Amino acid sequence: MISKLIEKIVKKNAPIVVGLDPMLDYVPEFILSEAFEKCGANMEGASEAIWQFNKKIIDATYDLIPAVKPQIAMYEQFGVSGVSAFKKTVDYAHEKGLIVIGDVKRGDIGSTSKAYACGHLGNIKIKENIFSGFDEDFATVNPYLGTDGIKPFIDVCNECDKGIFVLVKTSNPSSGEFQDRLIDGKPLYEIVAEKVNEWGSESMDGDYSNVGCVVGATYPEMGKKLRELMPNIYILVPGYGAQGGKGSDMKNYFNSDGLGAVVNSSRGIIAAYKQEKYASYGEDHFEEASRQAVIDMIEDIDKG
Amino acid sequence: MISKLIEKIVKKNAPIVVGLDPMLDYVPEFILSEAFEKCGANMEGASEAIWQFNKKIIDATYDLIPAVKPQIAMYEQFGVSGVSAFKKTVDYAHEKGLIVIGDVKRGDIGSTSKAYACGHLGNIKIKENIFSGFDEDFATVNPYLGTDGIKPFIDVCNECDKGIFVLVKTSNPSSGEFQDRLIDGKPLYEIVAEKVNEWGSESMDGDYSNVGCVVGATYPEMGKKLRELMPNIYILVPGYGAQGGKGSDMKNYFNSDGLGAVVNSSRGIIAAYKQEKYASYGEDHFEEASRQAVIDMIEDIDKG
Repeated sequence: MISKLIEKIVKKNAPIVVGLDPMLDYVPEFILSEAFEKCGANMEGASEAIWQFNKKIIDATYDLIPAVKPQIAMYEQFGVSGVSAFKKTVDYAHEKGLIVIGDVKRGDIGSTSKAYACGHLGNIKIKENIFSGFDEDFATVNPYLGTDGIKPFIDVCNECDKGIFVLVKTSNPSSGEFQDRLIDGKPLYEIVAEKVNEWGSESMDGDYSNVGCVVGATYPEMGKKLRELMPNIYILVPGYGAQGGKGSDMKNYFNSDGLGAVVNSSRGIIAAYKQEKYASYGEDHFEEASRQAVIDMIEDIDKG
Repeated sequence: MISKLIEKIVKKNAPIVVGLDPMLDYVPEFILSEAFEKCGANMEGASEAIWQFNKKIIDATYDLIPAVKPQIAMYEQFGVSGVSAFKKTVDYAHEKGLIVIGDVKRGDIGSTSKAYACGHLGNIKIKENIFSGFDEDFATVNPYLGTDGIKPFIDVCNECDKGIFVLVKTSNPSSGEFQDRLIDGKPLYEIVAEKVNEWGSESMDGDYSNVGCVVGATYPEMGKKLRELMPNIYILVPGYGAQGGKGSDMKNYFNSDGLGAVVNSSRGIIAAYKQEKYASYGEDHFEEASRQAVIDMIEDIDKG
C-alpha cells in the first residue's frame, strides 16, 4: 500500500494529507441547519452535518491531494451515527480515488489487536463470504503494548496490501513525559523507532515499508534524527500549521529522494475560512478556502 | 464513579468483571442461525449474533457481578453494525444495574482526546440539548502521549462522575519491550505509575481515585510492587484464567482493606462451555456454564 500512496504523492506533487477532523464549530451554519432539518438537532443531525461538510471538502480538494486522514475520535463523539459518518467519509474518499489513513490510534494485544486490524484494514469471513468493516488503507497504531499489538496489523498489511503508521514521537507538548525519557542513553522514541525498523522489514513494498511511523512536526530536530534512523520508513507528520509546525522545518522529515514523509494538516485546511487569511471566502464558500489552503500548504512545504 | 464500583463489589462480594469480548467462534450455532436468518449471513447478522450472545451472558450472571467490560475491538471488527451491538450491550448492562468498563484503550491529544472522553464517558451539546454517545462508566486509556491525552478524560470524570483505567503494565508476553525498560533505574511502567498517582489525585472519590490503572494478572510480582506504589489507585487486572493469571496470585493486587483491585476474565467466562470442565452444560446451556464459571472464579480469588 505504501507504493500506492507514493505514486499518488508523486503524481500530484503533494506530500500532504488533509485531516478530516470535523468539529461542529467548523461546520457552516447553512450545512448545520439543513442537517438538523433532515435528521433532527441530535446525534444523527450532527453526524449528517459533519459528513456533508467532509463531502464538500473532499469535492473541493481531491484533485490536489493523495490522501485524507479522518480522525475517528471526532466521529465517535457522536456515537453510532458518528461512526456511520466516518464510514461514509472513508467510502466517499475512496470513490474520489483518495488513499484513506484512518487516524484511529488503536493498540491492543493478540486476538483483540487482530480484530482491530481486520475491522479497520482487513476483512472478516462470515459463513462463506468476505466482508470488510471500515476498510481504511492505513491505520495509526499505538506501540505501548509492544510486538503483540503490532504483529496482527502487519499480518493484515501483508494479506490485504494495507499499511500502518506507528506512533513514535507525537506532536503534543507533553509527548516527552514518557517518549523522551532516556533508556540506555537513548530516548524511548528512538527505542520505539528501532522496533519500527524491525517491524517494517516484515512488510516491504518497494523501497519503503507498509509500516510507517508518526513523528510530530513540532519536533523537527528529533524528526531529523528519526529520519536517519529509519531510512525505509515513511513518516506521517502531524502538527503542521495550527499546532505550530513550520513549512521550513518539514525538510527534516524527507529523504534525499524527495520521499519519505507525508505532512498532515487538519484544522488549517478544513477550517481555513475561519482564518483571517481566507476570511474573504466567507462561510458560503468555505470549501474554496480549503482548496486555497491546500495549494498554499503544498507551496509552503515545497519551498521549505 | 469508583465509589459506585466499590459499592457493587462489596455488596456482591465479587471483585471481578466479566469481559464481553465475543468472537463468532464462541457463539453457539443456534444463536448464529437465528441471527443470520433475521439479518442475513453478513455483518448485521454477526452483530446481531454477538449482541444476543451477550444478552444471555448478562441475564445469567448480572446478579453475581458488579461490572462487565466489553472490548470494543470485537465489535469494531463488524463495522458500524458491530459498534451498534457494542452500544446495545452497554445499554442493556446498565438496565441490569451493572457498571460498564469500556475496554477501548483510546489515547490521543487535546481536542481529539476530549472527543473520545465525551463520546465514551461524557456528553455533547447539540443546540440546546445534551446527548451521550456510548455512555460507558469507565474507559481504558493508553498513556503513551502523556498528560495531554489523559487530562481531557479526567475533566470528564470530574464533570460527569465517570472513571478511567490507564494502561500501566499490560498482560501480554511482549509488554516488556517498552514497559519494562529502565529509566533512571526504574522500569517505564513505574514511571507511568507515578504519573497515574499524580493524575489520580485530581479525581478522588472517597479513598480511591476515579483514575485507575491496568496491571496484568500475568505479572504478579510487578503487581505487588505497583500495588504499593499506587495506594489510592484501583487496579483493573486482565489476564486471569485463559491468559495464565492464577487466583492465588491475585492477592498481590489487593490492599489490606480487601479493596483496590477488580479482576477481569473474558474467554474463561463467556466461552466456559467450551472448556472440558463445563462441557456437560452443552451449547444449549452455554450461559449456565458461564454462570458456574463466575461462581468458581469468585471462589478461586477469594481463597487466594
